[in-house]
Amino acid sequence: MAITFICPEKDTEPWIQPLKELDPTLEIRVWPNDHPRSEIELALTWAHPPGVLGEYPNLKCISSMGAGIDHLLADSLLPDPGLPGNPTIVRLVDRELIRDMSEYLLLAVLHHFRQFDFYRAQQGQSAWRPIRPLEKKERVIGIMGLGQLGEAAAKRLQKAGFSVCGWRNSPKKIDKIQSFHGKDQLETFLSRARILICLLPLTRTTRHILNQNTFSKLPRGAYLINVGRGDHLEESDLLTALDQGHLSGACLDVFKTEPLPEDHPFWQHPKILVTPHISSQTNPRSVAPQILSNLNRLRAGKSLLNQVDIKKEY
Amino acid sequence: MAITFICPEKDTEPWIQPLKELDPTLEIRVWPNDHPRSEIELALTWAHPPGVLGEYPNLKCISSMGAGIDHLLADSLLPDPGLPGNPTIVRLVDRELIRDMSEYLLLAVLHHFRQFDFYRAQQGQSAWRPIRPLEKKERVIGIMGLGQLGEAAAKRLQKAGFSVCGWRNSPKKIDKIQSFHGKDQLETFLSRARILICLLPLTRTTRHILNQNTFSKLPRGAYLINVGRGDHLEESDLLTALDQGHLSGACLDVFKTEPLPEDHPFWQHPKILVTPHISSQTNPRSVAPQILSNLNRLRAGKSLLNQVDIKKEY
Repeated sequence: MAITFICPEKDTEPWIQPLKELDPTLEIRVWPNDHPRSEIELALTWAHPPGVLGEYPNLKCISSMGAGIDHLLADSLLPDPGLPGNPTIVRLVDRELIRDMSEYLLLAVLHHFRQFDFYRAQQGQSAWRPIRPLEKKERVIGIMGLGQLGEAAAKRLQKAGFSVCGWRNSPKKIDKIQSFHGKDQLETFLSRARILICLLPLTRTTRHILNQNTFSKLPRGAYLINVGRGDHLEESDLLTALDQGHLSGACLDVFKTEPLPEDHPFWQHPKILVTPHISSQTNPRSVAPQILSNLNRLRAGKSLLNQVDIKKEY
Repeated sequence: MAITFICPEKDTEPWIQPLKELDPTLEIRVWPNDHPRSEIELALTWAHPPGVLGEYPNLKCISSMGAGIDHLLADSLLPDPGLPGNPTIVRLVDRELIRDMSEYLLLAVLHHFRQFDFYRAQQGQSAWRPIRPLEKKERVIGIMGLGQLGEAAAKRLQKAGFSVCGWRNSPKKIDKIQSFHGKDQLETFLSRARILICLLPLTRTTRHILNQNTFSKLPRGAYLINVGRGDHLEESDLLTALDQGHLSGACLDVFKTEPLPEDHPFWQHPKILVTPHISSQTNPRSVAPQILSNLNRLRAGKSLLNQVDIKKEY
């Protein structure tokens, strides 16, 4: 029996190496290379070609190669029970990715509060104009999405002296963080968020959740940080909100189309900071033990780590 | 008896307000306004006109209005014992200033490690080029100056996951921070510092300590952050080191001449990030109790807080 990678856009070498170091006997295949499809128990996937999973009759587990599973949902074989072995779907939870994401958000938030965008623009004009940093107490940071990434970011920002609240689908208590949930509390949450961070999973419900209606509920002058997915954002609505001055700026790390096309208006917008999807990445070395652990659990008939509810889409 | 402000460049109103709130009976004067010079016990000064302190026959304490006292040393009446009452010299130690400085340095360091300077330049060219963050373990941050500001910054950076070492004049033990001292250990310290932060007091010895000789001892590709004083830096040596590629970049918050003149080459240098002396400022409200406390101690004949050794110049 063996595992396979199905990830046409990714280099598999950095993934195979640490797995081989941990278990030299492990049989690893890479799609579309020639190998009997029937020997595959577990498939590690990222943006796999829709339909291809149907070729594996003995597939027991599909593991996303990252924290998100939105790329899996593009395949009509999922979430419908269209696969023979009814495989369990899991994702990878990487402590290093969680730490890196919190760090990126701390940087983006400090950058905003300490007026680094303004000073960069002033430098371009050789202009010396010291202004006050933004007030931490007055400017609440609102985090949409309080999963493992959102909770870690909330705690890190709170420890750094910022006022933080959060919103998610279902209730969750987090020490010292005011947490809102569900559609009913969304407006109250938004009305407090002077800095809005999107860390939601991408689902049918959250697609384009960063739209004109959402922005209109934020206090005037609010700032947006999107590190979720490009499809969370209705791009033209952001441009309108910035141009009307309702939003004061945005820091964006994810985009509908990546790489962001050269002629996209975000690049040269004076109020937008663009980073090329670098907030955090799953580290193949740090998740290798988790992959092996799930393979062993699968073989021992135990429940798997980091299972995904495909109906909830996260 | 009364206190006076002697600070032609500063607005005294934000200072007087909180002092009056704490002690409505306090007599406060402002130089050069008319008042009997003999009634002044304590002078709060910032860049006072040299010689003017000699007018105050009963002066018992001179308090810098900030953490540094280099501005006092420009007056030939100090450090020579040229003042009648042989006043004690103190400075203000502001917890908020220390916290703000650590925060600025965390921002500058994260900005460098997470390649934000690079991404800003890429954005100007509408170019999508994700690159790896710098490695924290490999890139040691060296802090010159381990007083209250330097120690707090070292601890904050260390907690944020960075490798930190420090250097100062005399030995000092700080938990988990490797600390070097004196001329003999300077070269060893510099050879480890991939990021060099200057937080030294400005004295005859430290003036122009950031020079070609110092830079040549740093590993190739090192990055400089100067938040000490503009006079710590030999400006033309920095330009040479950057242009030769020995230093990879610099973040500067202080300058020989402030405001930085419009035609200064730092403004448009692609490897220099300029901020207009905003890393941290003494908050008049947070130091008001300290000023009153020293006045009370003076009147009670007790030793003063935050005394300065004028011969050491800090």
